[in-house]
Amino acid sequence: MADGGLAVVRTVAELRHRIDTWRAAGETIGLVPTMGALHAGHLSLMRLAKRQADRTCASLFVNPRQFSPREDFSAYPREEAADVAKLRGEGVDLLFAPGADEMYRAGSTTQVSVPGLGDVLEGALRPGFFTGVATVVTKLLGQVAPDVVIFGEKDYQQLLVIRRLVADLDIPVEIIAGPTVREPDGLAMASRNAYLTALERTRATALHAAIKAVAAKATASDKDPAALDHAIEAAKETLAAGGFARVDYIAVLDAETLAENPPASRPRRVLGAAWLGKTRLIDNVAV
Amino acid sequence: MADGGLAVVRTVAELRHRIDTWRAAGETIGLVPTMGALHAGHLSLMRLAKRQADRTCASLFVNPRQFSPREDFSAYPREEAADVAKLRGEGVDLLFAPGADEMYRAGSTTQVSVPGLGDVLEGALRPGFFTGVATVVTKLLGQVAPDVVIFGEKDYQQLLVIRRLVADLDIPVEIIAGPTVREPDGLAMASRNAYLTALERTRATALHAAIKAVAAKATASDKDPAALDHAIEAAKETLAAGGFARVDYIAVLDAETLAENPPASRPRRVLGAAWLGKTRLIDNVAV
Repeated sequence: MADGGLAVVRTVAELRHRIDTWRAAGETIGLVPTMGALHAGHLSLMRLAKRQADRTCASLFVNPRQFSPREDFSAYPREEAADVAKLRGEGVDLLFAPGADEMYRAGSTTQVSVPGLGDVLEGALRPGFFTGVATVVTKLLGQVAPDVVIFGEKDYQQLLVIRRLVADLDIPVEIIAGPTVREPDGLAMASRNAYLTALERTRATALHAAIKAVAAKATASDKDPAALDHAIEAAKETLAAGGFARVDYIAVLDAETLAENPPASRPRRVLGAAWLGKTRLIDNVAV
Repeated sequence: MADGGLAVVRTVAELRHRIDTWRAAGETIGLVPTMGALHAGHLSLMRLAKRQADRTCASLFVNPRQFSPREDFSAYPREEAADVAKLRGEGVDLLFAPGADEMYRAGSTTQVSVPGLGDVLEGALRPGFFTGVATVVTKLLGQVAPDVVIFGEKDYQQLLVIRRLVADLDIPVEIIAGPTVREPDGLAMASRNAYLTALERTRATALHAAIKAVAAKATASDKDPAALDHAIEAAKETLAAGGFARVDYIAVLDAETLAENPPASRPRRVLGAAWLGKTRLIDNVAV
């Protein structure tokens, strides 16, 4: 925009009107879906989008359908004014921030599910989570119809689920993955890090250290699966000793299919999820 | 096309290439999804599409995911050469006729489901049917990205399910409904009519007569629900006496939501499904 301004849009109709104007001028569109509470990781995705397309749209929607009744939907950090300032600082063109009534109109029932990839790890621990994610992402891709959409590798399984659904439903969009942005001590940037107490924050770095150690072992022990199992057990014990209340999983999986026991010839990924007090942290690294 | 020819395309890549060429020329696109075995009802939809958009695409795909193992997937009539000739006669620009391996690539798992509208009537009797329909229609809309898509009122519940999913997933397409085309004796045109024996064919017209009688009663008996129930029972008895092996349902429902017992102030629809020998017929009329 000539004035470098950020348009904040609340309705699909106004969103489409603005997108259509850009389309008519021959401009390409990049979309960065978010749940707000933006941190440096999100902002790196905005910069990635700006390099890929003429116009950058961010969306901000804390999607109720991807939270179970026991989860932190109401507590999830909401700080739109600060988010708007950050997006303006990055030169983002449009923020689509609809209310839940606009996103899910009365009578809306349709669901998009991704059996397989969406059933393991986070999907097994959080029933309905990936159906909620897949449904809202399909909607956002229909609403914006972007040329490229950007997702962070921080939510690695989500990235794979979305790659799967975009391929399976033939949605005409290119998916670009942005690398995880970390604090100086290695902790992956995450909106939920705001829940951590000062003590928990010092302990939180252990999750990244643990999965890095497992990844190193996976590289070194290609011919000794038992050694890798021992490394995973050791990582879990380290986290427990370091104040983590529970480890949901630490696993070395096929980086494309999340299949178990991938051979060393395949790309592999170490994924971990663990609880510090009432805060659930997830992280992942390549082998 | 300059030569009035029909392009027959087997892959999504070639489909998109041709659509992109039309788009670049500023042309609009209409899509008519079919399972082939084209009859006058389909051809009326092609003519409707031609009035709505610059270019008309038909698709021909007998979708395995909307047939249960006990249903007639392998027996379903396949007569592509005749279909191509009919489409050429209508001046259709493109036929997309992919194989099952092209439509469902290896590893594909994503499903689109429409709870509520997709769970009653046909959905209750044919588990998985509307999830199969919703998934393949979502894919076709992603593959073609048409401006308008045409569906026949003959499959009335399917039309409502697709209206629901397009609204719910914010797919940017206009849906146009084509009226049911009937034989001179009232039988709704349907590819499965080809299964009927000569005797069954003479009996088949009773289904349309039965639902028309119920619709007339629904208009006349607004203040007497019992009279409507009696009319439905009488219609079922007439069908049984007329050689129908089983009546799956005859119902007067809200024409938009398929809710039961709609007040006369609402638009209403009579829907029926019944078996003649091994052939299942469906039909519907407005009240």
